[in-house]
Amino acid sequence: MADNTPTSTGLRGMSAGSTALCTVGKDGSGLTYRGYDIHDLAEHARFEEVAYLLLKGALPTQAELDAYVATLKALRGLPDALKTVLEQLPADTHPMDVMRTGCSVLGNLETEASVGEQQAHSDRMLAAFPSIINYWYRFSHEGVRIDTETDDDSVGGHFLHLLHGKPASALHARVMNVSLILYAEHEFNASTFTARVCASTLSDIHSCVTGAIGSLRGPLHGGANEAVMAMIEDWQTPEEAERALLGMLERKEKIMGFGHAIYRESDPRNAIIKRWSKRLAEDVGDTHLYPVSERVEDVMWREKKLFCNADFFHASAYHFMGIPTKLFTPIFVCSRLTGWCAHVAEQRENNRIIRPSADYVGPEKQEWLPIEQRQ
Amino acid sequence: MADNTPTSTGLRGMSAGSTALCTVGKDGSGLTYRGYDIHDLAEHARFEEVAYLLLKGALPTQAELDAYVATLKALRGLPDALKTVLEQLPADTHPMDVMRTGCSVLGNLETEASVGEQQAHSDRMLAAFPSIINYWYRFSHEGVRIDTETDDDSVGGHFLHLLHGKPASALHARVMNVSLILYAEHEFNASTFTARVCASTLSDIHSCVTGAIGSLRGPLHGGANEAVMAMIEDWQTPEEAERALLGMLERKEKIMGFGHAIYRESDPRNAIIKRWSKRLAEDVGDTHLYPVSERVEDVMWREKKLFCNADFFHASAYHFMGIPTKLFTPIFVCSRLTGWCAHVAEQRENNRIIRPSADYVGPEKQEWLPIEQRQ
Repeated sequence: MADNTPTSTGLRGMSAGSTALCTVGKDGSGLTYRGYDIHDLAEHARFEEVAYLLLKGALPTQAELDAYVATLKALRGLPDALKTVLEQLPADTHPMDVMRTGCSVLGNLETEASVGEQQAHSDRMLAAFPSIINYWYRFSHEGVRIDTETDDDSVGGHFLHLLHGKPASALHARVMNVSLILYAEHEFNASTFTARVCASTLSDIHSCVTGAIGSLRGPLHGGANEAVMAMIEDWQTPEEAERALLGMLERKEKIMGFGHAIYRESDPRNAIIKRWSKRLAEDVGDTHLYPVSERVEDVMWREKKLFCNADFFHASAYHFMGIPTKLFTPIFVCSRLTGWCAHVAEQRENNRIIRPSADYVGPEKQEWLPIEQRQ
Repeated sequence: MADNTPTSTGLRGMSAGSTALCTVGKDGSGLTYRGYDIHDLAEHARFEEVAYLLLKGALPTQAELDAYVATLKALRGLPDALKTVLEQLPADTHPMDVMRTGCSVLGNLETEASVGEQQAHSDRMLAAFPSIINYWYRFSHEGVRIDTETDDDSVGGHFLHLLHGKPASALHARVMNVSLILYAEHEFNASTFTARVCASTLSDIHSCVTGAIGSLRGPLHGGANEAVMAMIEDWQTPEEAERALLGMLERKEKIMGFGHAIYRESDPRNAIIKRWSKRLAEDVGDTHLYPVSERVEDVMWREKKLFCNADFFHASAYHFMGIPTKLFTPIFVCSRLTGWCAHVAEQRENNRIIRPSADYVGPEKQEWLPIEQRQ
């Protein structure tokens, strides 16, 4: 019967199409968005500049960027019907389910009528997603109905402002900016591929993004930084962390935040977010979470030759900015949205419905048996 | 530059895994669910029996089927929070967007906590989806808040009862039963594949189904029977239909409801639903829609050697039962849900995350250019 067990190849290494948006793991460790190195983008760019690059095809001039930021600022308000929906979702709802429903309802109320509207809807989601998750979070957890229209200059600053009820510090806004850039795009990962399969039926962009959110929710995809936080927050000292970690390795438990399906030598995003996590640790006067994180990194390399991926130091970085762990993956959504929408546009440019084949391993022809004869 | 245009292979003819659920187009025209021929199922089975076959793995005994029908009957009520959400969605919302949001919100309120719950949630959706779409439809179009808990013996009867506010005739319940069987499962079509990609991240079943609904919404996938209706309802006589159709063919316009990506010789579902459409035509005393449909079928075969697929005679059949055209695709959802959930379960049994590769056709390494130097 072993031959008849349904299997999944995961399409690993099989091309499902072409893209001009991203390279992952060229020469073992690189990451580029439309040819630009992730190091350059994280060092020099604003997230809105990267969103523009992905969504509109080229880096903006200063005038274009100013206009784009102004456009996004004007799109932060939520329709009353959407707020009413968010108020129905209890505090213990999975936050990714809130993002999924929020995006779907936005699509109910502001439906994409034609492909010509895709840029406008992408921008709208980019501006409104931080409003959606924080409106729900503050209402369900604190009982307040926040005004989601702020004057912050960035998506990251807007997010933190809504969450904390006050404008973010320059440092925090900067780190959010870097984080959103690092998570923005990653080729044909499972959530992006979900969006492309949906786009290939010529469905609307909200359906594509709603589906992608559902896939990112899976623990094999998004959510690794939340799992990292749940692990490291238990440890008070590097020594305790090392002892506990060695025990986990001994018991062959899965350690989140390490290794990668595509990168072979290192994840280029790690060094970048690690530096900012250190900076935030100094800023808040942390004396244990960052040292614990560093020790975990050292031990994993020493024992397993496994490198940190983008998620590992994101956990401590977000924590230092006062972000509740359960909102880590929704921030991933606010960033990856740009990649998803760029891939939807690319799929639509030269579309063929994505409809693979399957190998049949089920029973051969079964004779119909009337119900009274079944046992 | 032609070589650098992003393309999509659509994975046509490429295996994305194996399945024991379905064969499509074996010998050019067959369709089987777990080895049972679609003709046997449509002739002898109840839809709930087919749902049981797909979801639980084998045809039920009479006692099992009775228990299953009783289970489904008890799951037709909607939570108040979900009703409030549905009341926020205006009458001109796309009904497939209502299904997408309704499923997502059900997942917010009744979240799948572990894989062990997948059967219970599949059953719940199977019972509740007709309630969701009809609660919204009757509220937004007629201003009434219906009680969705009825005592009807079948999913199809429940659907028609909620829509029309009275129990369905035996004939109508029978035709709905056949229709739901015909649409229940179809291997790795785009919406099912969407559900499997989502399931492969180990996300929850509501995320998988929400994503699948989004893909079925696309005009290249679901919705063909709505397009057929929009076409044939304009024609008063077979002669008018033939003249108009020949004009459309002359202008190379796309005629919906004909041909199929996989079937080569015929779609086995067509003869079955055609027979029931004829029966309904006699029942309502129709003298033009059925003759128009038959003429269109004849002309398409004579002129193009194209056969009707499952969608073509579904249009007239649904219309004869008083179903508004905009609810055709949501009925497809109420049926295909069974296939989606069966595929999610199968994907989880032997999972590998679905993460294909892409061919990069974008720019080579781009040097960073400070914003003030851009033009």
